[in-house]
Amino acid sequence: MAGYTESYAGKINRKLLKKQRIIEVAAGREKADLVLKNATYVNVFSGELCTGDIAVAEGLIVGLGQYEGLQEADMSGCIVCPGLIDAHIHLESALVSPREFVKAVLPHGTTTVICDPHEITNVMGTDGIDYMLQATEGLPVDVRFMIPSCVPAAPMEEAGANLDYRDVDSFFDHPRVQGLAEMMNYPGVIAGDGATVAKIVASQAHHKKIDGHAPDLQGKDLDAYIAAGVYSDHECHDVEDALAKLRRGQFIMIREGTAARNLEALMPLLTEKYYDRCMFCTDDKHPSDLLEKGHIDYIVRKAVALGCDPIMAVQVACHHAARYFLLNNRGAIAPGYLADFAVVDNLRDFNVVTVYKKGRLVYDHGVLAEIAPPPVEGYLQARVHDTFHLTRPTAGSFADSRPRAVLGMVPGEITTTDRGYATAVDLERDILKIAVVERHKNTRHIGLGYIQGYGLKSGAVATSVSHDSHNIIVVGTNDEDMASAVNHIADNHGGITVVEGGRVLGDLPLPIAGLMSDGTLEAVNEALESAKAAAHALGVGPDIDPFMTLSFMALPVIPTLRLTTRGVLDVTRQQDI
Amino acid sequence: MAGYTESYAGKINRKLLKKQRIIEVAAGREKADLVLKNATYVNVFSGELCTGDIAVAEGLIVGLGQYEGLQEADMSGCIVCPGLIDAHIHLESALVSPREFVKAVLPHGTTTVICDPHEITNVMGTDGIDYMLQATEGLPVDVRFMIPSCVPAAPMEEAGANLDYRDVDSFFDHPRVQGLAEMMNYPGVIAGDGATVAKIVASQAHHKKIDGHAPDLQGKDLDAYIAAGVYSDHECHDVEDALAKLRRGQFIMIREGTAARNLEALMPLLTEKYYDRCMFCTDDKHPSDLLEKGHIDYIVRKAVALGCDPIMAVQVACHHAARYFLLNNRGAIAPGYLADFAVVDNLRDFNVVTVYKKGRLVYDHGVLAEIAPPPVEGYLQARVHDTFHLTRPTAGSFADSRPRAVLGMVPGEITTTDRGYATAVDLERDILKIAVVERHKNTRHIGLGYIQGYGLKSGAVATSVSHDSHNIIVVGTNDEDMASAVNHIADNHGGITVVEGGRVLGDLPLPIAGLMSDGTLEAVNEALESAKAAAHALGVGPDIDPFMTLSFMALPVIPTLRLTTRGVLDVTRQQDI
Repeated sequence: MAGYTESYAGKINRKLLKKQRIIEVAAGREKADLVLKNATYVNVFSGELCTGDIAVAEGLIVGLGQYEGLQEADMSGCIVCPGLIDAHIHLESALVSPREFVKAVLPHGTTTVICDPHEITNVMGTDGIDYMLQATEGLPVDVRFMIPSCVPAAPMEEAGANLDYRDVDSFFDHPRVQGLAEMMNYPGVIAGDGATVAKIVASQAHHKKIDGHAPDLQGKDLDAYIAAGVYSDHECHDVEDALAKLRRGQFIMIREGTAARNLEALMPLLTEKYYDRCMFCTDDKHPSDLLEKGHIDYIVRKAVALGCDPIMAVQVACHHAARYFLLNNRGAIAPGYLADFAVVDNLRDFNVVTVYKKGRLVYDHGVLAEIAPPPVEGYLQARVHDTFHLTRPTAGSFADSRPRAVLGMVPGEITTTDRGYATAVDLERDILKIAVVERHKNTRHIGLGYIQGYGLKSGAVATSVSHDSHNIIVVGTNDEDMASAVNHIADNHGGITVVEGGRVLGDLPLPIAGLMSDGTLEAVNEALESAKAAAHALGVGPDIDPFMTLSFMALPVIPTLRLTTRGVLDVTRQQDI
Repeated sequence: MAGYTESYAGKINRKLLKKQRIIEVAAGREKADLVLKNATYVNVFSGELCTGDIAVAEGLIVGLGQYEGLQEADMSGCIVCPGLIDAHIHLESALVSPREFVKAVLPHGTTTVICDPHEITNVMGTDGIDYMLQATEGLPVDVRFMIPSCVPAAPMEEAGANLDYRDVDSFFDHPRVQGLAEMMNYPGVIAGDGATVAKIVASQAHHKKIDGHAPDLQGKDLDAYIAAGVYSDHECHDVEDALAKLRRGQFIMIREGTAARNLEALMPLLTEKYYDRCMFCTDDKHPSDLLEKGHIDYIVRKAVALGCDPIMAVQVACHHAARYFLLNNRGAIAPGYLADFAVVDNLRDFNVVTVYKKGRLVYDHGVLAEIAPPPVEGYLQARVHDTFHLTRPTAGSFADSRPRAVLGMVPGEITTTDRGYATAVDLERDILKIAVVERHKNTRHIGLGYIQGYGLKSGAVATSVSHDSHNIIVVGTNDEDMASAVNHIADNHGGITVVEGGRVLGDLPLPIAGLMSDGTLEAVNEALESAKAAAHALGVGPDIDPFMTLSFMALPVIPTLRLTTRGVLDVTRQQDI
């Protein structure tokens, strides 16, 4: 990316030599690097299973038919699919580094993910994007990026950064940047807000995609949003909503992730008439969900179980996302396409047995190939591990006697109701103190309020995963434990913690931007589940995810009440209380 | 294109203002520029007819539903289709200037054509491409270009230019250049010829499309050709050939033009399973064919008559070509798309009644809007009208007593057979003299031979439309008339002529590069038909197109014998005779 690396003539010459070798192999004059012998494979173009050898050279598929290879692998009894594609994910939601994420999804046949680094960018701004780009370079899952469109997510948020169109713009020449990530600020777009629309305009000027996020938007507002230049939506939760968008030209990303699952409701899209405009995405995948269910392979399996034609499901799981994102060299098994393969036992069980990335066997019956950590420059490596800038709070920082609004939790939802005011913790009525501690710029802002329905009987629970600004959010029965929980997280440079009487009972350090661990997915999952158990042991209701629930309480776009670093906000009225 | 015109910030700002107006109109806060009221329109995304108003602002569709406009047009009783797209045409084949061509196809609902300026480039090299780019700028049909890949078409040709990858490359930044035109030199690609493959590599380096041309190619050769990076084919004449290519990832351009008509044979592609990978093209459209049958509208009508679902036919006629060429703002009726409409009476008769280009009514019930001639710079305007550089031949130039090979015409085909040798014209046996006169670089090369089966009994017939090098080809019963025919064409700076006893009996001047007229399509057609009649009156067989037949006799890629400026060539053996 930086500066002069080779002449254009030199680049063409090198590509030419590689292309000539590809032609030699395809024409049968030279042995292939790899041949998948006797393959039954999904042909996404004709919508059928084809059979034959698949010849690979220079990381590309070069021929189909009968070939000989330096390496050969017999594919009898399996089905070869193109590598699967997740069309939209916030990789940070897995709580692990990009490399560990890749290790987790590769065994599920994923070879490309389109990632929106919205969380880390709210913490670190463009440095967060640069870090993610470097930390994914050369990994055996091709991690592509959409540049976050809404940082901060709302004007009243104290995030770590504020991105305008020039910031966004500066990434569009990167070869792994596909466009502008989900434009959540649809009211801003519809109102024609200049700063918001400028990001769309700049993306279009670079011929980049712009993803949408507009649950239930309809009528002229939907027209305005789409006419502005938003090409997809992954927030459809019923088929009427999806069809209204599809008819207006949007591509529909059928989301089946951890927090939101829309596949069942959107099954009517997976028919001849509409499936061509659909792809799969997960949006958010938490560690246990990734480990237990899988990734895009899980969506394919579920879609087939719900009655979708299996070949159609595979087409949706790879080729359509590739075409949408103009990644025209993948998502299919044909000459010239990347040799990315997810080999499955059969199209119904869809258990991935081996995975190839650019012709390299990277996963084989439970065994992952070695994945070297991508080099990240020193500045970013240090910066990403040093994102907590706050004066350590004391118990006194949380002491307060003024009446504060009470956020009423709603079972099974992330919305809240307005439950009036409280002046103190009241365990009888399950009223706890809740605070958001600004941690990016040492503003010493601490927003205070109360919350009802969480269930904690003793101690405090805190997390630095706190959408979308990722300040530290803490709930407690007493000010001392709230202070220790926050300080413990600050000491760890991020994480999730459960504290009682000053003792740490649950602990998941997340030192990468306060969002991601340096450990493996398994280790993270274990620490997380153990911390959850600790929170439940302290009284948090069994139906409540102690941390995920908290992580949404500071997101000032979900009704009715939310807590920001400035105090409780009435989201509906957009007023501080 | 040339140099600094505006700052990037200024460009974004101007686009932003326009986008904000689009949003105002879409949201219903401001009146649209134009509303097509009560429209029944083809929705290419859902494959159905939808109804409602179509609102247009700033040349784009902005909303669907209920809108008010500064201008309103009632669409009751009609069907609104997206503007039609010809995916591959040699515009020169219509024998008129680009502006006249546009005037001819606009009434047929065509709003975008993908043009391969192969003919003019063989005459003028990159100047020919620059001329075509300038001569099409701002026309109400968006003329897009694929840069010719094979100039000259074969190594033994004496064309006006020789393009290497650097020449081709220099056009890829032009906003109306979509890629590399039909790669006819498939043997070169399959052999891995560096100069040939470099053009593909350079196109890929610019993320451009590469069109194919590979009749009946199959097996490993087809794999090699596709793996090299050729994304489409328009030469399929049977469904097996087409399916082999489609299965390997190529897009299929179903061609229905003047010389080649493949629609009927390829009808099985126009089903749910395959149609998504298909588009329509004409390749070549001669004046009478354009005037009598129409353009892409004719193909839609014919496809429907042959049993294709009409909505599917419309999808193939617009949206699929748009997606293939990454012209993602057209080929559909949805917010954000170009307001290009072909309004037809009904989907079966498919008579175009009105046409809109970017929201402007450009054709209305037989009446075309005024179309200003695009400004072409003086150098190119002069250059394009001065492409004949030859020393005037005399009768003596054609005098010859050596035995020369006889090209045997095959009724209804453009192939020839080898009919041995002749030493003189023999009207009894219908053996005529044929010559190709080099006219680009005054090399004084004149290739001589004989032809059997043409039928001429007196005089000479000549044309400067002579694939692919466009030297002057002439057939005659005597050397004097051959010389005058050639000189008449040279005097006219190009054209088609019929001469007898020194008198010009048929005459179509084609002063634009020797390929295109400055007149209207109607005038050209009249002159052409009259010249044909003159040729037939002199004895040319009634089943023979006197000029088109001639125009292929110098194309040294069609078996068996051809005539070049160096004499008769055995194409099969690649040997001069």
